[in-house]
Amino acid sequence: MMSSLPFQPIRNKGLISIEYDSMYHIGFTSKQDLRTMFGDIRFVCLGGTAHRMEKFARLLVRELPVKLPTGCDLSDLSAHSHRYSMFKAGPVLCVNHGMGAPSVSILLHELFKLLHYAGCLQVTFIRMGTCGGLGVPPGTIVVSKEVINEFGEPNHTFSILGKREDRPCFLSQELAEEIISVGRRSYPSLSIISGKTMCTNDFYEGQARLDGAFCPYTMECKKAYLNELHNKNGVTNIEMESSLFSAMCHYANVPAAIVCVTLVERLKEDQIRDEGTVSLAAAQEMLQNVVLSYIKHKLQGQT
Amino acid sequence: MMSSLPFQPIRNKGLISIEYDSMYHIGFTSKQDLRTMFGDIRFVCLGGTAHRMEKFARLLVRELPVKLPTGCDLSDLSAHSHRYSMFKAGPVLCVNHGMGAPSVSILLHELFKLLHYAGCLQVTFIRMGTCGGLGVPPGTIVVSKEVINEFGEPNHTFSILGKREDRPCFLSQELAEEIISVGRRSYPSLSIISGKTMCTNDFYEGQARLDGAFCPYTMECKKAYLNELHNKNGVTNIEMESSLFSAMCHYANVPAAIVCVTLVERLKEDQIRDEGTVSLAAAQEMLQNVVLSYIKHKLQGQT
Repeated sequence: MMSSLPFQPIRNKGLISIEYDSMYHIGFTSKQDLRTMFGDIRFVCLGGTAHRMEKFARLLVRELPVKLPTGCDLSDLSAHSHRYSMFKAGPVLCVNHGMGAPSVSILLHELFKLLHYAGCLQVTFIRMGTCGGLGVPPGTIVVSKEVINEFGEPNHTFSILGKREDRPCFLSQELAEEIISVGRRSYPSLSIISGKTMCTNDFYEGQARLDGAFCPYTMECKKAYLNELHNKNGVTNIEMESSLFSAMCHYANVPAAIVCVTLVERLKEDQIRDEGTVSLAAAQEMLQNVVLSYIKHKLQGQT
Repeated sequence: MMSSLPFQPIRNKGLISIEYDSMYHIGFTSKQDLRTMFGDIRFVCLGGTAHRMEKFARLLVRELPVKLPTGCDLSDLSAHSHRYSMFKAGPVLCVNHGMGAPSVSILLHELFKLLHYAGCLQVTFIRMGTCGGLGVPPGTIVVSKEVINEFGEPNHTFSILGKREDRPCFLSQELAEEIISVGRRSYPSLSIISGKTMCTNDFYEGQARLDGAFCPYTMECKKAYLNELHNKNGVTNIEMESSLFSAMCHYANVPAAIVCVTLVERLKEDQIRDEGTVSLAAAQEMLQNVVLSYIKHKLQGQT
């Protein structure tokens, strides 16, 4: 059963006094008939690239009871804004968020407003990402239960009128468990684990890689750092959006999950190459199938 | 005259011991003949969206002594990576950087490596952006001379092996002056000023907007904050990439400039709407023309 509670992520009473709201980066305004367009949305799936999110939307159209009218195809709803790409597959919105916390931050503000104006019922947000793994082979699906920032703290730092405000990186444990359990049942051959995810603001120095344009540390220091992260602190994977995503969804009281596939075992190597032990395309497919199985499960439970 | 010094942004001796380098996000490897492909690059122009950077590359092809062979058109050199879009117009590389510091960070690491492997001579990096203005009308071109982060500090914070490292946001004063002086000569009717730029990690709360999904401050607090930024601290504009861009280029010893056009006067309003006093398309055109005039000036001086 899915919740039929209204979707209320908005913590801004001032919004009601705005003549009309321009959600500039996704290319919508509150003057449009957003209820008709988006009122049925129950899931928002986010991932880095437009390419992957379009592929996922097409998979959903094939696998869910969603039928496009004859002569119609999916089209990018945010194409004219040139900032994000958005595809709608029945009750699932698939949007690319770009790379890094600031890009996700802009998108979440505007999606929260869009779905609020659309009068949606409760909506679940799922980030589908790629990441580096620690102590797990490439191709492992990690569902985050905890998130820390690049300084090891369980929060994301915001600047409010120039003052630092730390908001906690909280994720629903029940939602994570349910995704893991449905995923394992649907795909018994995949390795699907619950994890502790570290979020960084840079892919190279921020993740202790040796192959950036700069590298102000030795290979030994890097190894000691990553080993400590994994062995002492229990970190399973590293990516670049989870702290903002979890902190912002929690602040908005929106159920949120982070499901990532590891492309590289960072205790062994730095570089992501397509001839690795798991191809990028295969890794993406596994990830998309796991999230699909969860969405199918919830939508079936609803009818 | 342009410098004929080699381009040496790399601060990582370990790179020489890598079998080959995969620059995953821009979609190149050091196994390719990068010298032939990119050895002539003298300028790298960066901006938020792929759409704008393609438009700028096409403007350069029309306006510079660059002739494409009959039957050839520009194509996106990074299309297959799905992360960034890259266009080459003679000696100018035009690349979109997405939104926010983390996205620019990944790109700069990989561009520095690409142009280093290509054996380029000195390369100038120019960020071309949109921004909110403080105390200036929409359509003002601001060339940054100083940059501060969202806490008012003149540096960008990196995480190196989990430890905080602040690197200074330094920009070449001479380069900024030259862009302003050439721009004013070429376009006397435009308002082109030198500025102090604040960089934030969020567009809504981080820039004290009243129209985000969250707004934990009153209109009065917002006004007092923005007025103090402008009147006391001399901030002219706010965007989301300048602190990382200036700090990283300075650390790499790469000449860098930031040229932005203001889309909204933030002391008066928050929303960016296309029916504003300056259209988005017109603002972009002004910005592109100013940067074009500088590049033309430098390339003419070279011959």
